[in-house]
Amino acid sequence: MNLQEEIIAKAAAAQKAEIALAVLSTEVKNQALLAMAEAILNRQDVILAENAKDLELARQKGVKRSLLDRLMLNEDRIGQMAEGLRQTAALPDPIGEGCSATRRPNGLEIRQVRVPLGVIGIIYEARPNVTADAAGLCLKSGNAVLLRGGSEAIRSNVAISSILMKAAYKAGIPEGALQFIESTDREAVQHMLRLNGYLDVIIPRGGRELIKAVVENSLVPVIETGSGVCHTFVDASADFTMAKNIAVNAKTTRPAVCNSMETLLVHEKIAADFLPLVIAALQAKGVEIRGCEKTRSCCPDVLAATEADWAAEYGDLILAVKVVGDIDEAIAHIARYNTKHSEAIVTRDYDNARKFQRYVDAAAVYVNASTRFTDGFEFGFGAEIGISTQKLHARGPMGLPELTSTKYLICGEGQVR
Amino acid sequence: MNLQEEIIAKAAAAQKAEIALAVLSTEVKNQALLAMAEAILNRQDVILAENAKDLELARQKGVKRSLLDRLMLNEDRIGQMAEGLRQTAALPDPIGEGCSATRRPNGLEIRQVRVPLGVIGIIYEARPNVTADAAGLCLKSGNAVLLRGGSEAIRSNVAISSILMKAAYKAGIPEGALQFIESTDREAVQHMLRLNGYLDVIIPRGGRELIKAVVENSLVPVIETGSGVCHTFVDASADFTMAKNIAVNAKTTRPAVCNSMETLLVHEKIAADFLPLVIAALQAKGVEIRGCEKTRSCCPDVLAATEADWAAEYGDLILAVKVVGDIDEAIAHIARYNTKHSEAIVTRDYDNARKFQRYVDAAAVYVNASTRFTDGFEFGFGAEIGISTQKLHARGPMGLPELTSTKYLICGEGQVR
Repeated sequence: MNLQEEIIAKAAAAQKAEIALAVLSTEVKNQALLAMAEAILNRQDVILAENAKDLELARQKGVKRSLLDRLMLNEDRIGQMAEGLRQTAALPDPIGEGCSATRRPNGLEIRQVRVPLGVIGIIYEARPNVTADAAGLCLKSGNAVLLRGGSEAIRSNVAISSILMKAAYKAGIPEGALQFIESTDREAVQHMLRLNGYLDVIIPRGGRELIKAVVENSLVPVIETGSGVCHTFVDASADFTMAKNIAVNAKTTRPAVCNSMETLLVHEKIAADFLPLVIAALQAKGVEIRGCEKTRSCCPDVLAATEADWAAEYGDLILAVKVVGDIDEAIAHIARYNTKHSEAIVTRDYDNARKFQRYVDAAAVYVNASTRFTDGFEFGFGAEIGISTQKLHARGPMGLPELTSTKYLICGEGQVR
Repeated sequence: MNLQEEIIAKAAAAQKAEIALAVLSTEVKNQALLAMAEAILNRQDVILAENAKDLELARQKGVKRSLLDRLMLNEDRIGQMAEGLRQTAALPDPIGEGCSATRRPNGLEIRQVRVPLGVIGIIYEARPNVTADAAGLCLKSGNAVLLRGGSEAIRSNVAISSILMKAAYKAGIPEGALQFIESTDREAVQHMLRLNGYLDVIIPRGGRELIKAVVENSLVPVIETGSGVCHTFVDASADFTMAKNIAVNAKTTRPAVCNSMETLLVHEKIAADFLPLVIAALQAKGVEIRGCEKTRSCCPDVLAATEADWAAEYGDLILAVKVVGDIDEAIAHIARYNTKHSEAIVTRDYDNARKFQRYVDAAAVYVNASTRFTDGFEFGFGAEIGISTQKLHARGPMGLPELTSTKYLICGEGQVR
């Protein structure tokens, strides 16, 4: 069996298992998730040993320290994986939930209920915890799943996925519902993208390059995630302390993640007073500032921003800063450069708050809060499979309901049309 | 400007107009739809004259009579187009509607509200009424639209779309929100499929070949519509008269549409009694029957079905008939051959009714009613842009809410994470 045949066989097995999984009871699914959590804890020695091999090879290859950090597992992180599975078990089962119900004049009763999407393909990069997170969320929502992790984490992922499969099937999940592609051949991703007829959706999780390649080449519908060029606009009426705290929080708490701020926009009326304050606070946290002309006239030690800076997703302690004439210029700048992820205004003006939320086109639009809150847990979903930056199907943080479709159930007594 | 540049320019103009259209008041949108309806009626002579040219050319080319019928406009049909626009004006505006609202423990207030998808591409075939229907539904839901109709209807479509644009823009729709591709070059569709970054979704409306070509080649997300291999399963406990009426209705009232029945499944316990009854009734309506061995042993005058018949979407007065051992065999047959559109069981057995609705994977699953009810108007949506046969974003008949996305609006008082 060549690689393509092997991947098709895995997808076909997932599709077959999905028929039974779609109607599996909530109780069996929950018990399986708890068993998977326990198995991961019980066999953490195996996982850590395999992870050590991945880390060693990565070090030999001289990969970046940030990648090593994403790759690295320890007892704490394995504990978090298990806890994630337990939390998913505790969430309400979306399957079968009613979305609408009507009775038509002809007596037909129509109910719309949630059903699984079917088979979900997940393509991800270095973090091995995604293996457990994605498996748990997909199984809980009645979906079979075909996983493809990054080659750097292959030993860790093989260990985790085989432990999960064994525990899941023993606990009653239909055999085949959880599939992992063990080949590290780059062709494997190309084969996955051609699994239309087997996969119902592919969710890529990772950097911009991965997501772009998946969106452009997939014959399977894709949910685009992650890329975030997020702005914070400090309006003329903003409380300076609040604005400074929000800007520092949005930029510095986890600069590598997609809901971090990349560009700060400041109303020109307050630029001379506010910019020195906020830039000093950011620089104290190690942030490199790249400013427009007006920013540099207030803060001469700031580097000059180029056109490329307005579109940059630094993912790092770097921030572009631009002075704008008014809220309309801020909104226009955001419309031009944002990735429709998360945008914030800091203001005390009621009309501007409403205008910003109405006119800015993004998954999450904040007034007086940090963009860092765009997250399934912070939104109260109890879980997150990713953050959709597209408009079709799901937008923003995706929890269990976003992993479902619906069907209409119609009951009659002989109605014809 | 070559064809590709021309199409990109139209899409860019639509995208620009969409910024203002997304926040346009319900009243202006409704007034515009009413003005469009009036303009179509006032200028029906122009439309009919252009339609006559399309028909003449189609006749010269010797196209099928069914295509001529789809192409043909008359006063009645133009009246229906106008009435459709008026009905869309009368529907509730989905934009701004709240989907959920929560308050988090940290005091953040999160509301999820409906927003337009953005720019919608519609690729359709012979029916010129789609031009008005699609334009009305897209504009009402705040979406700009790029239309591409079939070459047979080009003169009718150019006339209708230019009348609609003039009326819409005069009534306050932002100029550019309604775009029609006038080129009949087949390359135009290929260019549309590459408009990622401009179009948010493409909805193909037409035959299986068109839909397949769009799904396989589009870089823009697609909502797949229309293909329907629908079954009716007559269970052992079915009321014979009800089952016969449903079967005749589902097959014969409009055999060319996607919610018509293509295969009848009959429980073997009642085959000998029920089959002669239902087949005689269908034959009396001109239906050609292609049956399995067991069907032919009950009704010897029936043609033999081949494997291809079980997967066929005849779209015609032809029906495949198969005797099955029990409900499980019926469900398995449906799982293998259906297009997940509409499926029905006729039964008096409570458990079987529930089992069928739970296990059959389709957009609409009926008990004791005709599959012909799968339709936006019959479901009470007041409109329909198509019937989705995919699971992502929308499934089944799509009304105005299915032409929307959502965004999260978050209000705080300085929260940081």
